[in-house]
Amino acid sequence: MNIPNSELPRVIIIGGGFAGISVAKKLFDKKVQLVMLDKRNYHTFQPLLYQVSTSGLEPDSIAYPLRKILNKSNNSFFRLAEVDQINADQKEVKTNIGTLSYDYLIIATGSKTNFFGNENVEKNAVWMKSVPQALNLRSLILENFEQATITDNVEKRKALLNFVIAGAGPTGVELSGALAELKNHIISKDYKDLNKEEIQVHLLEGEDLVLPPMSKKSSANAQRFLEGLGVHVHTSTFVEDYKNNIVTTNTGKQFNTETFIWSAGVTGAPVKGLQAKAIVEKANRYEVNAFNQIKGYTDVFAIGDIALMQNEDYPKGHPMVAQPAIQQGEHLAKNLLRLLNNEEMKPFSYYDKGTMATIGRNKAVVDLGKLKFGGFFAWFIWMFVHLWFLVGFRNRIVTFFNWVYSYVNYDRAARLIVRPFKHKKVEMSDTD
Amino acid sequence: MNIPNSELPRVIIIGGGFAGISVAKKLFDKKVQLVMLDKRNYHTFQPLLYQVSTSGLEPDSIAYPLRKILNKSNNSFFRLAEVDQINADQKEVKTNIGTLSYDYLIIATGSKTNFFGNENVEKNAVWMKSVPQALNLRSLILENFEQATITDNVEKRKALLNFVIAGAGPTGVELSGALAELKNHIISKDYKDLNKEEIQVHLLEGEDLVLPPMSKKSSANAQRFLEGLGVHVHTSTFVEDYKNNIVTTNTGKQFNTETFIWSAGVTGAPVKGLQAKAIVEKANRYEVNAFNQIKGYTDVFAIGDIALMQNEDYPKGHPMVAQPAIQQGEHLAKNLLRLLNNEEMKPFSYYDKGTMATIGRNKAVVDLGKLKFGGFFAWFIWMFVHLWFLVGFRNRIVTFFNWVYSYVNYDRAARLIVRPFKHKKVEMSDTD
Repeated sequence: MNIPNSELPRVIIIGGGFAGISVAKKLFDKKVQLVMLDKRNYHTFQPLLYQVSTSGLEPDSIAYPLRKILNKSNNSFFRLAEVDQINADQKEVKTNIGTLSYDYLIIATGSKTNFFGNENVEKNAVWMKSVPQALNLRSLILENFEQATITDNVEKRKALLNFVIAGAGPTGVELSGALAELKNHIISKDYKDLNKEEIQVHLLEGEDLVLPPMSKKSSANAQRFLEGLGVHVHTSTFVEDYKNNIVTTNTGKQFNTETFIWSAGVTGAPVKGLQAKAIVEKANRYEVNAFNQIKGYTDVFAIGDIALMQNEDYPKGHPMVAQPAIQQGEHLAKNLLRLLNNEEMKPFSYYDKGTMATIGRNKAVVDLGKLKFGGFFAWFIWMFVHLWFLVGFRNRIVTFFNWVYSYVNYDRAARLIVRPFKHKKVEMSDTD
Repeated sequence: MNIPNSELPRVIIIGGGFAGISVAKKLFDKKVQLVMLDKRNYHTFQPLLYQVSTSGLEPDSIAYPLRKILNKSNNSFFRLAEVDQINADQKEVKTNIGTLSYDYLIIATGSKTNFFGNENVEKNAVWMKSVPQALNLRSLILENFEQATITDNVEKRKALLNFVIAGAGPTGVELSGALAELKNHIISKDYKDLNKEEIQVHLLEGEDLVLPPMSKKSSANAQRFLEGLGVHVHTSTFVEDYKNNIVTTNTGKQFNTETFIWSAGVTGAPVKGLQAKAIVEKANRYEVNAFNQIKGYTDVFAIGDIALMQNEDYPKGHPMVAQPAIQQGEHLAKNLLRLLNNEEMKPFSYYDKGTMATIGRNKAVVDLGKLKFGGFFAWFIWMFVHLWFLVGFRNRIVTFFNWVYSYVNYDRAARLIVRPFKHKKVEMSDTD
């Protein structure tokens, strides 16, 4: 793999998401040799993927080359590689571009979409965990509008203009809001031959409220904002199947749609090779102790979505979102340096900075400790926080500019079908 | 196709390139019903495609939704469609989304890459006439750098880092310059494990100078600028074959490369259905009279690259570039309106506004009538003209911002592999 030999202990990080980047940054120019492996050459700012899907932002606004990040340090190396297997006995990682030994291994492979075993959903739905998938979804949405324009058959046109989203977590809520905005502000401009009232956005959620992890107040606010935008919210509704363009549910409600977006759950994305007991089966995540060491190992760590750290406050582990990943990464970096100095590691504790979700172009809900608020000011906070966290100067400016423009013009940036999806049989595979 | 019936005569325009857009704009809100058909939903600013390939600009900076353009008029319709055939007898256009009758038909389908019958080149080379192709080329370049990083075999690494471009027209020259800039300013930052001296850019040209259509002075300047950037220019060199990563030429010189970019020629992209004599065989373009009427027809017109209008000044037709396309489009719009008013049409005459090409990040050559100059001022003019012509306010600003940023930082915007190319067997097909 052409990584130079070094006197320094080698730390391999698998995955350049929030967790991988945050541990890497804190190890820059410390007494370790860093190697980051990822199957993509860029970091994806996942919280804004829904903006790419709905033509609000271009990929380069929410993705950033991993090399550019790792370049800031002399002892850091990036390799575009897919990891096949870990051989913990030999302290080696086997990849499609060769095998590399490690002194410490950090697994930060994140999560993947969870279909809960429903094969029809996996085969027929679309979802959005990566930039190419988000571009696929964008193409599908635009191709549906194009096709609806020329479709006389009412049933068929309904199916093309029905957007059904399963799962009212932040992704589902934000996507529904953005689709409603597309309907309200863009369609009558771009697709004047469509009757925009025929466009329907349905959001399905198994629990009895949207944004289940947030406060009751924010859930209620979010639902009100969504309904204000015209989104049909169906709570206590479980999806049973999706085939022949029909979504069936436990309540008997059916939805006729060519665009069924699955955002109803994620599951860990572990790597082959560690002993079976390291993985908590149901969650598909590595069981780690308070130092993020994977059960049964002292030199193999897991951080972020893929790590399941159970304690009193979080009996089911931390939420699979950016904040725990970032904090675990930073904490692990410090612990590694302590290890190298023969000091004792300190246990991780999660500081909940709050959660938020945006609904449409000027509303959001925010839970900040005991403070729970929603509306325009919340949206302003949401925008500020997201801009702030976007990696890299340029992205921040371009994104900001796009948002301001989009806000002033009620218009969305680019509605280009660059990855024709529908008639090309593009696979939704995660590596695409 | 769901185009409403209208009292007004229907004008169908096939193709939303420079020619198609310019004729459409001049017919907005006149007494015609306009229908534009294109297989993509966006206009591509082709002169800047090379910037997408070399990670300088994102697609949305150089592409613009056709619907957004046509929306400016009430009597205009866009349909995403591939034209299968013209039935001139029935005055109908047959497409993949149905058949539509016309009163006047304007063919503005442009050109496609010309391989001059060399099947190996067509099979093994890459080229760049569309946004997806430009993104493929970008991915290929970046994937080659990644692969070179991990390749010990010197010969193999050479092939990965040799970039060979056939054809020193504006595209070949601009692409070579941009690749040389990538080498000089980016590689040592992003790929510090690569020895940048191993990267070689070779530009091959059959004629004895680069930019053959320009003045001798500009050709000489361009060659000097290219060589100043480290590009190896091989004039009087014809490509004979490309297989097993080897480019062979008439001079005996061989090039070992995994990236052979073909920009050595274009040929018309006519539509099926018109009588054979309408097409000039060698050029693959429609023979048109001074009113852009296709030979043998009075109600079927061709404009832009696909039109071959021969006269004393241009015995082989106009150059296949943006200016004649734009001017013919505008002129035809006026002629159509004259026709509808029972006035006589006026013959087209081309006003040569000059030609220019840019080399790298701060040099260009410009032929402006008798004025021929090159260097930084020429680059400034080049940038100004290109920004000016970019369709749409937003694109102009974003592009300008990217250029300024790129200029100040010696850095390029986004080096994302969003369309993994090499190991995915993506076809270079034009419809991709």
